[in-house]
Order: sequence, then C-alpha cells, then structure tokens
Amino acid sequence: MTLTGELLIGAARVPATAGTMTALNPATNEPIEPEFAFGGAAEVDCALRLADEAFDSYSHTDLAERAAFLDLIAEKLEAVKEELAARTSLETGLPAAQLESEAVRTAGVFRKFATVVRQGRFLQTAIDPAQPDRRPGPRMDHRMQKVALGPVVIFGASNFPISYSVAGGDTASALAAGCPVVLKAHNAHPGASEIQGRVIQQAVAEAGLHEGVFSLIRGADNEIGEALVDHPLVRAVTFTGSEGGGMALYRRAQQRPDPIPVFTEMTSVNPTFVLPAALAARGAEIGGGLVQRAMYNVGQACLKPAILLAVDGPGFQEMRDAARAEVEKVAARTMLTPGIHDAYTRNAQRMQERGATRIAAGPAPIRAWDGQSLLYEVTGEQLLAEPTLREEVFGPAILLVRLTGLEQLHEAARAFRGQLSATVHAEESDHAAAEWLLPILERRTGRIVINAFSIPQEVTYASVHTGPFPATSDSRFTSVGMSAIERFLRPVAYQNFPDELLPESLREANLLHLWRLVDGELSRP
Amino acid sequence: MTLTGELLIGAARVPATAGTMTALNPATNEPIEPEFAFGGAAEVDCALRLADEAFDSYSHTDLAERAAFLDLIAEKLEAVKEELAARTSLETGLPAAQLESEAVRTAGVFRKFATVVRQGRFLQTAIDPAQPDRRPGPRMDHRMQKVALGPVVIFGASNFPISYSVAGGDTASALAAGCPVVLKAHNAHPGASEIQGRVIQQAVAEAGLHEGVFSLIRGADNEIGEALVDHPLVRAVTFTGSEGGGMALYRRAQQRPDPIPVFTEMTSVNPTFVLPAALAARGAEIGGGLVQRAMYNVGQACLKPAILLAVDGPGFQEMRDAARAEVEKVAARTMLTPGIHDAYTRNAQRMQERGATRIAAGPAPIRAWDGQSLLYEVTGEQLLAEPTLREEVFGPAILLVRLTGLEQLHEAARAFRGQLSATVHAEESDHAAAEWLLPILERRTGRIVINAFSIPQEVTYASVHTGPFPATSDSRFTSVGMSAIERFLRPVAYQNFPDELLPESLREANLLHLWRLVDGELSRP
Repeated sequence: MTLTGELLIGAARVPATAGTMTALNPATNEPIEPEFAFGGAAEVDCALRLADEAFDSYSHTDLAERAAFLDLIAEKLEAVKEELAARTSLETGLPAAQLESEAVRTAGVFRKFATVVRQGRFLQTAIDPAQPDRRPGPRMDHRMQKVALGPVVIFGASNFPISYSVAGGDTASALAAGCPVVLKAHNAHPGASEIQGRVIQQAVAEAGLHEGVFSLIRGADNEIGEALVDHPLVRAVTFTGSEGGGMALYRRAQQRPDPIPVFTEMTSVNPTFVLPAALAARGAEIGGGLVQRAMYNVGQACLKPAILLAVDGPGFQEMRDAARAEVEKVAARTMLTPGIHDAYTRNAQRMQERGATRIAAGPAPIRAWDGQSLLYEVTGEQLLAEPTLREEVFGPAILLVRLTGLEQLHEAARAFRGQLSATVHAEESDHAAAEWLLPILERRTGRIVINAFSIPQEVTYASVHTGPFPATSDSRFTSVGMSAIERFLRPVAYQNFPDELLPESLREANLLHLWRLVDGELSRP
Repeated sequence: MTLTGELLIGAARVPATAGTMTALNPATNEPIEPEFAFGGAAEVDCALRLADEAFDSYSHTDLAERAAFLDLIAEKLEAVKEELAARTSLETGLPAAQLESEAVRTAGVFRKFATVVRQGRFLQTAIDPAQPDRRPGPRMDHRMQKVALGPVVIFGASNFPISYSVAGGDTASALAAGCPVVLKAHNAHPGASEIQGRVIQQAVAEAGLHEGVFSLIRGADNEIGEALVDHPLVRAVTFTGSEGGGMALYRRAQQRPDPIPVFTEMTSVNPTFVLPAALAARGAEIGGGLVQRAMYNVGQACLKPAILLAVDGPGFQEMRDAARAEVEKVAARTMLTPGIHDAYTRNAQRMQERGATRIAAGPAPIRAWDGQSLLYEVTGEQLLAEPTLREEVFGPAILLVRLTGLEQLHEAARAFRGQLSATVHAEESDHAAAEWLLPILERRTGRIVINAFSIPQEVTYASVHTGPFPATSDSRFTSVGMSAIERFLRPVAYQNFPDELLPESLREANLLHLWRLVDGELSRP
C-alpha cells in the first residue's frame, strides 16, 4: 500500500486543508515520508454529515450482514499485518514482531464482535405480552430492544497503535453496535493509522455499505478535537490517553447544548498488594515477574503494575532484590514519542523530588529518546503523605512500597484513586487478610487479579477494562471485552405494535433465533 | 403518623438548621401544618457520610435479604396508603383515590424490584474459564459481575408525589442495586415526603440494616441541590423535573473534580401522529381519547401527549371536533403548586403569541390557581417555523397540528428534539406510511406506541422511560422498568481467583442458581 497521507472522508481521499505534518521516527527524532494531511472544521463537518446519512441504513443492517462486514475487516487487517507492523514499528519504536501479533489479535477482536453481532444478545430483547384480562386494568404488549446511538467519534490512542487505535476495539465495538465511526487518528503514528483506515474504507466499499460508515480525520490536536466533540451530529465519543486530554474533551462535551456520553480511559497505577505468606513463599518470583510485566511496551501500558506494596518481613528483601536485578537487566528502549520521553524523564525526576529513593536503574540510554528502566522505593508513610507518589508515571518506572503492617496496607489501598485493576498475591493462609482487602479494592477498581500478571489482556465476555474515576470517566461501561458494545446502545420500547411493524428481533416468530426475556424469564431460541 | 417536619438522617430525626417552610394547599395557596425543617451543607455531609459507611455492608447484603427489605418497604407503604393519599392530596390537589392507587402501584414496584434482586440476573455474571493449553498463550480464568456504584442522591419529583418521589421507582431501583440513598424531598409535598421517608427509615431499622442506607433531606432548593451534587461521596444522581433544573444539576456534577453520572428526566411533548386511514376510520375516537389521556394528572405528566399531528383530510374535522368537545368538558383543576400554575398560564399565553389559535377551552376556573384545559391549533408550516411551539407546556394544554401531506408529517417528525415517547395511529393500509415514519421516531424517542394511549405507564421488563436529549440526559438508561437498576451498577472482573475468594455469584457451585454467561453462552442454573 502506498501511503498518500490523505484524510479518508467516506469513500474519498482528501488532501490537506489545514497544513500537514510528517511522522517522526521516535528513535532518531527524524521525519519519515510522506507528508500527512491535516483537516479542519470543514472536514469534520463533512465526515459527520456522511456518518449521519449512513446511520439509518447501517444501524438497520441485518445481523448477518453486519457480522460479515466485521469479519471482512478482520481478514483485510490480517492481510496487511506485515506491512502494518513494519510501518508502525518505524513510527512507534515498538518491536515489529509484537505489533504483528497485535494486528492478529485485533483482527481476532473484530471476529469476536462479529460473533457478538450474530448471537444478537446485545439487543437485549424483552417481551412482556399483552394481558387483556388483567385487573384492575389490562396491560398492553410491551417489547424492547437496544438500538444504535448514532455517529461515534473515536480518538485513537498512542500506546497500542493498532488495538487501541484506528482499527482497535473501540471501532470494532461501535461498528458492531451499528454506529458509523469518525476516527481521529493519533498524530504519533499517521502511517499506521492510514493503513488501518484504508483497510476499513475498503471493507465498507466491498460490503456495499454507505460510505459514511467510516471516516478518518487528522488535524492539529486541540482544534480538531474540539471540532469533533462540538459537532451537533456526534452522539458519543471515546478516548484513551492522558487524564488532562481526556477530561478536557469530557468537560467540553458536557457543556454542549445537548451533552453526549464521552467514555475516556485515562490513568491507572494498578497497585499490586503482596500478602505476607505469598511474600515469604514467592517474594523473588513476584518481584521479578512484576518488573517483566511492567516493562512490557516500555512501560507505556494502561495496565502497567506501577506500584508494588508489601509489608516488610520475610520475603521482602528477596522481592526487592529480584525486582532490582530485573530492572537492571532491562535495556533502555525507544519511547513512543520524544514528547512522551520528556514527560517520563520529568515525572521520574519528580518522584525523587517527592522523596522516593531510586534503588535500581537499567543500563544508561544510548540514544537520546530512549526510556531508562527505573525502580524507586518509599515507605508506606511517604506514600500516604504524598498523593503524587500514587499517580501514574507513564513509562518504565516502578515504585516499591515498604509497609509497616496490614493496617497500613489497608490504609494505602484506601488512599488510591479509581483504578483499572489491582492485583493481590496471596497464599491460602493469606485468605483471611485477602477477605479484608478485596472489598476495598472492589470499590476502587474494575478488575482484581489474584496471583498472576496478564500479558496481553484478554478480550472476552468477562473482560472488564474500566474503573472509578480517574481510571475512566464512567465506571459503568467497559472499553474492552464483549460488553464494550453497550456504550453505543440505547433501549427503545415498542408498545402495542402489530407484528409486521415490529423490528425483526421482536416479532413473534423469532426468526433470528434470539434469546429473549419473556415476562421476566429468559427464553431459549 | 404524626408529622414532625424533621429531616431523617439515618435513624435520627433532625430539627431545622437552615430555616423552615410550610406546605401550601395549592387549591387555596394557604399553609398547612406543621413546619418542615430545612437542612444545609452540614446535614448533607452527615447523610452522605452515613450512606458511605453503610455502603460496604448494604451493597454486600445477600440477594434474599435485600429482596426481603424491598418487600418490607412495599408492605409498610401499603399499610399507610390511606393516610399517605389523604396528606398528598392536600398538598398537591390531586384526587385521593388516584394517589391511593399510586401508592399501591408503587408498593408493587418495590415488590417487582425484590423479584429482580432474587432473580439475580442484574448481576450479569459471566465466566470465561481458564484455558491453560491455549496457543499461543494460556488464558487465565475471567469472571465478571456487576456491583453497586455507591451512595446515590435522588431528587424527588413534584408531579407524581409517590411513584416519582421519596418511595418511588428511583429509590426502589437504587436500593435494589445495593446503593444507599440520600433523598432530596420536593418542597411541593413535604408531608407526603415525610410519610414515605419514615416508612423507609422504619424498614431499614426492622431489617437490621445500617442506618445510613436511607436519609431524607429538605432545604432551600438551589443551595441544597448544589451541596448534594457537589459532595465527594455521592456516586450518582437522579432527577425528574424541568430542563432548566435538570441541566443545572447535570452540568454542575460534570464540573466536579470527579464527574459523576446524573440521570435527569426532563421534558417531552410525546407527539402523536395520526396516519390517513386511521384518521378516516377513527378520527373522533382518537381526538377524544387523546384529550382524556392528556388531561390525566391535570396535564402534569411526563408522558402527556401534548401535540397531535395529522394530515388534513377525511376524519380531520371529526378528530378536531371530538378533541374540542372533550376539552370543553374538562373542568379546571388545582395544579401542583401556584408556581406551576403561573408558569402554565405564561406558557399557554406564549403559544398564542407565537401564532397558535385557541380553538377550545374548558370551563373557566373558579379558584385562582386552577388550570384551565386548553386546545390550540397551528399549521404544519407554523410548527416547523417556530421551535417554541414544539416545546412542552406543563399543564392541561394540547396543540393540534394540521399538516398538508405525509411529506410535511415526516418533516415535522424530524423537527422534534428527543422525546420520551411518540404515538402512531395506523390502520393496516397505513403500514407503508408507518414504515417510513417509524425509523424517524426510533431515532428520536425511547418508546413508540401504536394505536393506544397508556394510563398509567407499566413498570415491567420491557418498559423504557428515557429518550434522546432533552427528554433525558442519557438515553442509554431508563428510569422506569426493571432495567432502571442498571443506572446504579458497574462491572468488576475477578481474574484467576481461588473459588473461596470469589463473590458467591461467581463460585463454581452456583449456589445462587443464577443464569450465567459461560464462554459466551447463556447457561441455565
């Protein structure tokens, strides 16, 4: 595929109207060909008008047709996986092999959503039949299903340039729901974005869908973001990135004349709590394993276990030593962008200014924009006294916390803001302590892991990738896993309808073979 | 029950700290005993601290215990139904018989949510078992359930002083979800609020629950509202009332350091479209029936069919005549408050200023604050040209729209903002026209009714009471019906858990006999 750097507005490729940019090789800070077009408010308007035009037909595609479209994207994504991985690696500094598996996994996510669409359970159909003889008054027939919300704007993320970017899980779940997508490409990997965008654009054309089902926009960051969330035809927004960026979009969208849902996934330190018996039994294994997990993607991952907490006692020294040894082994690697590298350096510096002791470091960077692996240590008292120590440092830094006892461990658990995840290491004799800790974590996180590190995360029915603020802007929805589709759906009731006017999912004959809730009981198709 | 006018903070009755108010008899604008206490920020803080303290135990009550608590509220509500109806009638001007059925129906809603809790389907449990041998890597065990969000603030509504007020559907669904409730009583019916609040307070005590599960606050409107939505321990807010009031709370909550979900149900004109064959066949029946439905609760209902649209032709005159005749029969009745009466008079006046012709009126009011039934008429062209004609007039006024053809009918349908409901009258020969109209309505409403008027609304599994803005602030959630509980839940994943540390709902043995989604397939208990 020859990259042209154009915007993709419906079926068209559109040249720059608001300047251009070049991609940077983050290892060298040098430009990579070609020039990429920036659009402005006019292109946003055009993309959203097309999306709105596409909505009626696309949201009413039958389930088999929509599923086939998602499968087609998966197929096309796999077909370009090598080219995509190579270009993405050039733009992000991430290893091509890792990116190739990311492409394959992401194709798998589109296939999984195709299955979700075929199953049709996301429609959540419910039927309460008429009760003409009910006393004191009759009940009319009530039927309900979920329908698509409308055009969705998705902001591509920088850190997983495929799975959280143009052809990522947000796009898959929005398209599965029946919502056209306007994708704001992240400027850190414009070529990777173009390849993915053209894959989807081609799939839209081959599937014979309205061209407005997908557009890809690129622009100067703040302006284009504001034009997108302000546009009257947008019905929902998703964003993965920093707390500052996410909240700016969120608050702006809430000040629209008609506020719209904005799901932002922002920041999380994913604390790991090691209970005493686990520490004594597996201190070294946990210390080493956590560092390996944390260093994945150069520490640039939303689930990075950034803070490791344990009560000082048997096993602590072993855990600390193993973590130090592991950190010292991890070579400095290219970070996603020079900007991210600079922020990492500043934030790591800040850890020290706030009293954290640097107890290990990886080999010194050879290239200017490589991120050095770092391990810091604080006491429980320090962690509790200084809120910034509990905040995310995006990059390959880890904080070890030495606690005085289980009481302080509970206090520390309570001090964290909302998290995407928390991990507990516990032996059977730790279970009583775990039973105290788990409710504290349940209130503050969207997922709890016991005795494991997870690379990469699963995209499945029970997957949850959300959490109380500031992990996300709405802990009621997940952005990963099959229920991510729920962000883009709303219920509609159909009362007293003649059968032939009902949506097919709700007709008496159940030709779609859906599970339906009939009079409050699940009814097998 | 002797009314004391105190606030109910947990188990305590708390006297005024920020002034007092008296209830007004809206028929006479005269005060009714006793004095009712106003609280301020200190009482808000106290109620929310208690709610937060109650959260861990209440949100983890077992399902049977929580269901029994809801049943107990239902029982106690029924036991006071006569007293409650009498006092509420005095404070609202609504007929005591209607209010007594409202009390019985609302008790029924608590019982229905008790069933929802016992069924446990709201937990939406999903299990993806471990796949240790999967290639390229193993999958760890993933399990998911929904958990309660945290303390919820509920603003009681004025127009249904039981079913949308203290012991209303919002309270029932929040308590069913496992969320403690802090209720902001509406100042239009403080005695009715106290009776309902004390019923719940007693049920909390008898059920042996933490006292913080329920508190009732009253205060000067804006101040107390702001203190409630600003409080750091609140996790969600619900509100039913005007667009102005709802949006002020909504926007304020979105500007918190940690934004929280605010579900506001605000404004809807619930347009009724009469298609040509239905008009010819049943014009008079539709005109009369719609007026009867619209005049329910003196037109002070969120589902009032306020605008009746049809193409001029056979049956139009009969429909218009029947509507006029019916309006002329409906006596002026006491509106909920003198303030609501004054707004009604102003808004009806505004209809005329914007070009609507008054074509019928009920008998002139005898008392100063009674609302006179009014019927206005405009052309389709007028409706399309003047947006304020498409806005709600809260009270017993109806607007008839004479359209030039089906094209103008579609144009009018597209011109409406988001609605709670829309109704279509159609004979079989209208079905082709209906198929054009229904997708337009589906995009703009939360419920569509064919050939019926619904009094009162059903609270059942397929009930939907929501709609695109400004009908509500989030069309993805319903405030009425069994799925109203979803507003107060969020998902949590439990990964790689030993069985004994799992919540009971997710343990291998399924002792709660729940439907669970296992590897993407629903599994019968």
